[in-house]
Amino acid sequence: MPWQDQPEGNNDIIWRYTENPIINRYDIPSSNSIFNSAVVPFEGGYAGVFRCDNKAVQMNIFAGFSKDGIHWDINHEPIIMQAGNTQMIESAYKYDPRVVFIEDRYWITWCNGYHGPTIGIGYTFDFKEFFQCENAFLPFNRNGVLFPEKINGKYAMLSRPSDNGHTPFGDIYISYSPDMKYWGEHRVVMKATPFEESAWQCTKIGAGPIPILTDDGWLMIYHGVINTCNGFRYAMGTAILDKDNPDKVKYRTRDYLLGPAVDYEMVGDVPNVVFPCAALHDFEQDKLAIYYGAADTAVALAFGKLSNVLEFTKQNSL
Amino acid sequence: MPWQDQPEGNNDIIWRYTENPIINRYDIPSSNSIFNSAVVPFEGGYAGVFRCDNKAVQMNIFAGFSKDGIHWDINHEPIIMQAGNTQMIESAYKYDPRVVFIEDRYWITWCNGYHGPTIGIGYTFDFKEFFQCENAFLPFNRNGVLFPEKINGKYAMLSRPSDNGHTPFGDIYISYSPDMKYWGEHRVVMKATPFEESAWQCTKIGAGPIPILTDDGWLMIYHGVINTCNGFRYAMGTAILDKDNPDKVKYRTRDYLLGPAVDYEMVGDVPNVVFPCAALHDFEQDKLAIYYGAADTAVALAFGKLSNVLEFTKQNSL
Amino acid sequence: MPWQDQPEGNNDIIWRYTENPIINRYDIPSSNSIFNSAVVPFEGGYAGVFRCDNKAVQMNIFAGFSKDGIHWDINHEPIIMQAGNTQMIESAYKYDPRVVFIEDRYWITWCNGYHGPTIGIGYTFDFKEFFQCENAFLPFNRNGVLFPEKINGKYAMLSRPSDNGHTPFGDIYISYSPDMKYWGEHRVVMKATPFEESAWQCTKIGAGPIPILTDDGWLMIYHGVINTCNGFRYAMGTAILDKDNPDKVKYRTRDYLLGPAVDYEMVGDVPNVVFPCAALHDFEQDKLAIYYGAADTAVALAFGKLSNVLEFTKQNSL
Amino acid sequence: MPWQDQPEGNNDIIWRYTENPIINRYDIPSSNSIFNSAVVPFEGGYAGVFRCDNKAVQMNIFAGFSKDGIHWDINHEPIIMQAGNTQMIESAYKYDPRVVFIEDRYWITWCNGYHGPTIGIGYTFDFKEFFQCENAFLPFNRNGVLFPEKINGKYAMLSRPSDNGHTPFGDIYISYSPDMKYWGEHRVVMKATPFEESAWQCTKIGAGPIPILTDDGWLMIYHGVINTCNGFRYAMGTAILDKDNPDKVKYRTRDYLLGPAVDYEMVGDVPNVVFPCAALHDFEQDKLAIYYGAADTAVALAFGKLSNVLEFTKQNSL
Amino acid sequence: MPWQDQPEGNNDIIWRYTENPIINRYDIPSSNSIFNSAVVPFEGGYAGVFRCDNKAVQMNIFAGFSKDGIHWDINHEPIIMQAGNTQMIESAYKYDPRVVFIEDRYWITWCNGYHGPTIGIGYTFDFKEFFQCENAFLPFNRNGVLFPEKINGKYAMLSRPSDNGHTPFGDIYISYSPDMKYWGEHRVVMKATPFEESAWQCTKIGAGPIPILTDDGWLMIYHGVINTCNGFRYAMGTAILDKDNPDKVKYRTRDYLLGPAVDYEMVGDVPNVVFPCAALHDFEQDKLAIYYGAADTAVALAFGKLSNVLEFTKQNSL
Amino acid sequence: MPWQDQPEGNNDIIWRYTENPIINRYDIPSSNSIFNSAVVPFEGGYAGVFRCDNKAVQMNIFAGFSKDGIHWDINHEPIIMQAGNTQMIESAYKYDPRVVFIEDRYWITWCNGYHGPTIGIGYTFDFKEFFQCENAFLPFNRNGVLFPEKINGKYAMLSRPSDNGHTPFGDIYISYSPDMKYWGEHRVVMKATPFEESAWQCTKIGAGPIPILTDDGWLMIYHGVINTCNGFRYAMGTAILDKDNPDKVKYRTRDYLLGPAVDYEMVGDVPNVVFPCAALHDFEQDKLAIYYGAADTAVALAFGKLSNVLEFTKQNSL
Repeated sequence: MPWQDQPEGNNDIIWRYTENPIINRYDIPSSNSIFNSAVVPFEGGYAGVFRCDNKAVQMNIFAGFSKDGIHWDINHEPIIMQAGNTQMIESAYKYDPRVVFIEDRYWITWCNGYHGPTIGIGYTFDFKEFFQCENAFLPFNRNGVLFPEKINGKYAMLSRPSDNGHTPFGDIYISYSPDMKYWGEHRVVMKATPFEESAWQCTKIGAGPIPILTDDGWLMIYHGVINTCNGFRYAMGTAILDKDNPDKVKYRTRDYLLGPAVDYEMVGDVPNVVFPCAALHDFEQDKLAIYYGAADTAVALAFGKLSNVLEFTKQNSL
Repeated sequence: MPWQDQPEGNNDIIWRYTENPIINRYDIPSSNSIFNSAVVPFEGGYAGVFRCDNKAVQMNIFAGFSKDGIHWDINHEPIIMQAGNTQMIESAYKYDPRVVFIEDRYWITWCNGYHGPTIGIGYTFDFKEFFQCENAFLPFNRNGVLFPEKINGKYAMLSRPSDNGHTPFGDIYISYSPDMKYWGEHRVVMKATPFEESAWQCTKIGAGPIPILTDDGWLMIYHGVINTCNGFRYAMGTAILDKDNPDKVKYRTRDYLLGPAVDYEMVGDVPNVVFPCAALHDFEQDKLAIYYGAADTAVALAFGKLSNVLEFTKQNSL
Repeated sequence: MPWQDQPEGNNDIIWRYTENPIINRYDIPSSNSIFNSAVVPFEGGYAGVFRCDNKAVQMNIFAGFSKDGIHWDINHEPIIMQAGNTQMIESAYKYDPRVVFIEDRYWITWCNGYHGPTIGIGYTFDFKEFFQCENAFLPFNRNGVLFPEKINGKYAMLSRPSDNGHTPFGDIYISYSPDMKYWGEHRVVMKATPFEESAWQCTKIGAGPIPILTDDGWLMIYHGVINTCNGFRYAMGTAILDKDNPDKVKYRTRDYLLGPAVDYEMVGDVPNVVFPCAALHDFEQDKLAIYYGAADTAVALAFGKLSNVLEFTKQNSL
Repeated sequence: MPWQDQPEGNNDIIWRYTENPIINRYDIPSSNSIFNSAVVPFEGGYAGVFRCDNKAVQMNIFAGFSKDGIHWDINHEPIIMQAGNTQMIESAYKYDPRVVFIEDRYWITWCNGYHGPTIGIGYTFDFKEFFQCENAFLPFNRNGVLFPEKINGKYAMLSRPSDNGHTPFGDIYISYSPDMKYWGEHRVVMKATPFEESAWQCTKIGAGPIPILTDDGWLMIYHGVINTCNGFRYAMGTAILDKDNPDKVKYRTRDYLLGPAVDYEMVGDVPNVVFPCAALHDFEQDKLAIYYGAADTAVALAFGKLSNVLEFTKQNSL
Repeated sequence: MPWQDQPEGNNDIIWRYTENPIINRYDIPSSNSIFNSAVVPFEGGYAGVFRCDNKAVQMNIFAGFSKDGIHWDINHEPIIMQAGNTQMIESAYKYDPRVVFIEDRYWITWCNGYHGPTIGIGYTFDFKEFFQCENAFLPFNRNGVLFPEKINGKYAMLSRPSDNGHTPFGDIYISYSPDMKYWGEHRVVMKATPFEESAWQCTKIGAGPIPILTDDGWLMIYHGVINTCNGFRYAMGTAILDKDNPDKVKYRTRDYLLGPAVDYEMVGDVPNVVFPCAALHDFEQDKLAIYYGAADTAVALAFGKLSNVLEFTKQNSL
Repeated sequence: MPWQDQPEGNNDIIWRYTENPIINRYDIPSSNSIFNSAVVPFEGGYAGVFRCDNKAVQMNIFAGFSKDGIHWDINHEPIIMQAGNTQMIESAYKYDPRVVFIEDRYWITWCNGYHGPTIGIGYTFDFKEFFQCENAFLPFNRNGVLFPEKINGKYAMLSRPSDNGHTPFGDIYISYSPDMKYWGEHRVVMKATPFEESAWQCTKIGAGPIPILTDDGWLMIYHGVINTCNGFRYAMGTAILDKDNPDKVKYRTRDYLLGPAVDYEMVGDVPNVVFPCAALHDFEQDKLAIYYGAADTAVALAFGKLSNVLEFTKQNSL
């Protein structure tokens, strides 16, 4: 998996890849920006689903492939969806995808434009043919993230109910489905924090990469937002959810683990955005690699030791 | 059923009961207001579920009973919910109930406070014991209205996705469930109109009473809202939805059928509100009686001839 | 002209007609409300152009006729415009008309929907055939009011530049045209007042009836708006503009002359609105009759002595 | 003191005077509205300081006198202030006065316009000559209410920090002064409530009449506001503060005691406002009379038994 | 004319000058920023009118001169206007000028402060003496751009009606004048796009340089704005308008041609702004040079081949 | 004191230190950002109180020490307050400190979180032990700045009344206290400017460093804010207040003296912020060193000649 050792003198839990951004805004001919994208191991290398806004600033998702998880070939044409568990595959736009392998296939969720943003679901076996399913929820919703296995016999999805604009609020919920078609048992998981306790996540929060099952429970990497007088600032934190009842938050970081602090995160189409969407991990090697959108413009990569991240989450918990 | 003949000289499709409001704001000891309430035939008379905000302006629902559908005895204590298809029966508040008999029991839906407004579901067999089920959707949602029978083998519910405040937008959607627990197959039914075409329903709309199956399809009575410089004004319209595919709107009134025009509708806790929540009908007698909240303060009653309402809806369609 | 003597004990400059409203919301079959309408002497009686919003709350203007200026026959169909000095007679909606006779015909101005509200212009010779001209201005504008004669050889029009919503600001300007087609020489006439000086007109102002030429200059009756915590409140004031340079305000009332204080002004589709749109006067009899919209719902009438109004304007000037 | 027995069948803690409003909007020649006014026993009868907005809607305070506390003679000219403990007696406007006798004189507080609303202080010995002191606080503040005696050797004042508009938030604070000139020791007393607990007071609250010392502590009558989709609604509640540490709230009503429910409270310049500003009481007779502004238009009167009010406050406490 | 060949490997329709910005924020002693400025050929070289905000951030326009169109001498004192076709030459501020030669003189339009922003008009023969004419329109308006020749015998001007703040909407209109004094025949030309179709221009649009007459019609270079959660982002597109009826849009780019992507466009007083105001062209050499404001701070230059721009506009049309 | 000669060719009144920022965002282990901080001469070197937001973005103040005023050792733990003139030392957050020596000790003021932002006061003799006093004012207030000596026998403090969010208004006031506990005699000092006169300070202003007594009066360095379409931009100006009546503004710069123009001021957690909080001066050497927060991220330093600053303030006065 992609990796770069921590620089000397750097004591952070998470450190940036020195060759960031790994994908730049104009890396395919049509693109205005490529960011907030998802990656999974695939056939000895990696496959990914990428948010590429084109130069009309239409939002869509594209498949891509890489041998090392760092250098990517992204298709020049967006993913075309065939009918999956429904004939209704309307989609005014697609953005912020997540990808996860469950049982026999790769499931993709994204923010799907159906009379407002909601959570689209699709799957592929090969990253060539894609099948679109029923939207999980009514609008307005964003940041739908599936768990990598069934919980108590059901599919489980995190999401963040929103409004139809630049939502100034937002908490993380979990919902369950027996069949990836009908969803229920909605529970609040965790909420934006009081300003005084942890201001970087006081405006809204949303799940990022697919949660990782650890001995401590589900490691959830998420973004938090503070509303400054000059706009939203997105940073990254972590939480550990109970394995069997993931609406129970066991630990949640008071501090952010990565916040906008270098040029490609602070300057771009939307300044001051660190938005994690995918992670690769290796327990044996104690490695974690996080893909994140930078300034709504490019894709960047950061690394950490899994054991450190878990320990920090437990020690630094709200 | 409740009825009063149309006054001489009155040519409206819908006319008001002369003894309105039939329930006043202080009609139970604890209440600040009683409005937006639902009624069904029950044991030779009528039962109802009433929104009674108490003098702390806490919102809750109360059972009530009537022989004639006009004079009501409303319980002085709110409905207590037992666990139905879930143990999770949190409810910070309950308001705007609808009631419908399906198969073997009376189902109640309401706006349920679970970290924001969403659609609560419950049932009763006798209006004495009540059982609360899983919320249908994630927040934020209001105006959840069940169809009185399964459609294509599934329960069907109209709803209006919202935000967490005085939502300035809102369209009607339909969702389906095999089991009253998991919901999916969400489809937009109809949207707020362009200002130029029909301004009384240009800000938001929401379903009202349980839809009535007619030869033309489902008769849906709904409210529409215009945002004037002095606040929202709620009026009532009708639509006819396709019987088997109720996300298809066959007809929809360009004109409102009842708008705030008398004192108890124009003056109250929220001025200028006509908000229908329930209807009784008799095809043989060609009668329709509509219960509506007046100025978020009291319950009023209006009448019409079913055949006229249907004809008007078809002739006056957008 | 319409008239009713001042009630005993009433010392106000302007007093209400006791039979108000003279036109009610449902006075024609299609109407939801009839208000903000204009009246002129015509063929021994009176003709008028009426704002009738229909029950779809589409806004349009209708011709009407009266022998006494009090009892009106309003056409059941809206005015149909033929091409006047242009073929471009698009109109998404028409509201708040004013009417004035200049030279050889009756000119009508109104708020015309052309990609937003702007000032429509039309004319008629007989209140049967109507001809629409070029819009005077770009959007967004409301309350366009012509002077009853050319000033310095040009047509002159007051107007109130706005935005595309419930404009929270607004001042009165004057513009000139050699030909009723091209407009220029735009000058500010008067502005909303500082809150401390005259709060009833501190949010926005707009011209009302056609200005009346007096020995002191042009008597302009106008509305002023204060934004209370429960919405806009519209009241009526007067100003006197210089005869030859009407962008010079000679006098302007600090006090309002008529504010919402009776039921039909305080309760209705938009509570607390007194909105003057037309006036009849007779210098010899020292009479002034003002037609005004009440609560955006009905048409009402008020009276005053011209000499008193002028004197009050001069004595009570800001 | 003014009194009217509770009507038969009325079980409310507070009941309205049947001849309300006792002062109408046009009761002095210059006034647009008279409301939110204060009253004290004076020379065998009663004196008061009245908010009279004139017809320019300039806000000012006027002295008035009454034999019975019900029928009032209000001066036609506003109070003129002389220099008290300062030469700086700027005042762009004055509104919402309170009056209290402490030691040797009548102290008046009001909302004073000094580059925004703040708390003005003045005193009089005779309601003829008035002396203005230093403003208590920096802007922005409203609803400054003095305690009727020193607490721990200092003057004490409740107030409600605001912003410069129609403040959508607001909590009650207390401040102390050794000399009516310098103020400090600011403490929060009580805050707006969570929506779910007591919605009528969930947007903002503010102290009303001078607190009354009882065996249970200070009886504070206050207003609470809920922000409906059609504007603010003001109702009245009570609280009991600790005698020696009045920033400690011992009891506070969950229910309102009087809310807008009759025409003169629901219709007027600002609909749906009950705003208490003064109270008279007699422990021996167990009487309480509350003066309140109705719809920002008129002055009304309500009565209750002191013992009932206290008991209700204790039994109904949040 | 200014020119730099397209860099190797660059396939964009428009490319940046490598020495950008050509004018920096502090290039004259008084300036805080120099941007959004206009340029024309003049006496063998080039003259220009420059927006220079001074260090009080007062906005004004300054004349400047250049031999090559790249290196500029900007006067240190703002343009002083003499009376042109009017004595009323009030101007609270001047910004965003455009310049065009018509018939016998250079016409300048700008955003002129007359009780709000509107379109100022002036002319010069020599860039030494300047004459101010009547404002074209009532406030509120911005981005007034003249056509370089009369159309159907009249002067023609594009403009963008606005409000009095950071307008969150805005469409392009055209108006005509027989005499540069009176304006009419207002027509909508093109509107902001639906978000789903072309989001970079979905909030508002405005004309940029003087339109260029081509065989395909008028080439209009314009800016489009998207409202991100961190503010407005301005990019550049092109459209082709019908030669004789320029309110007819023949083609309009779905994609932007130049968007903020380098430091001087993304960082500055207003980040993420590319704002074209002037263009030089040479059909024979197939050259187009576009002057644009960068981040409301500096002036930059970009180049393209005219034939490519036209072809792209036609092929990439909405 | 810290100093660096003006670079050749630089003619500005204020110039930046070339090694800026002198303190970076991560200079202590816990910090997310260090900015808006205060410095005084102390024991032959310098002491300071620093705003360090930690990585939870909790705001707090930290002591630090320096020999040269440029290289700083900041404590890793925040200041712990003991009870000063009160036992009530609640503080939900502390930010934007100022420090001044008066009589016998160092006084610190800061924005203190007590149910909203207000002005906290504390003192220290040694920068080891700190004592917290009563808050000066009720919320909501920011930018409390003490004068370095009593005026007319009383302590004097500048402040900026605010609201509870990203306040879009704000003027500078002065208040007096006999004892650092009770405050009064509040006077407006200076207000935000009209947009047309000096737009960089048209939204709000606030005092910065401790005022410096000069022969001309009190030199007050302050920040001004303009609200651009992409957020607030903070720049720095100066004013001279009357020595004995500091609410009298003798001079005030029309131009800003330092505005965001280099990367560390334009890019960061809040872009485009120059926020002065402290200054060192030496009349004999004619030196002024200003510490300012840059982009709410780091601390920077700028220099000027005192005589030039005073002269400029007088010559460039509004």
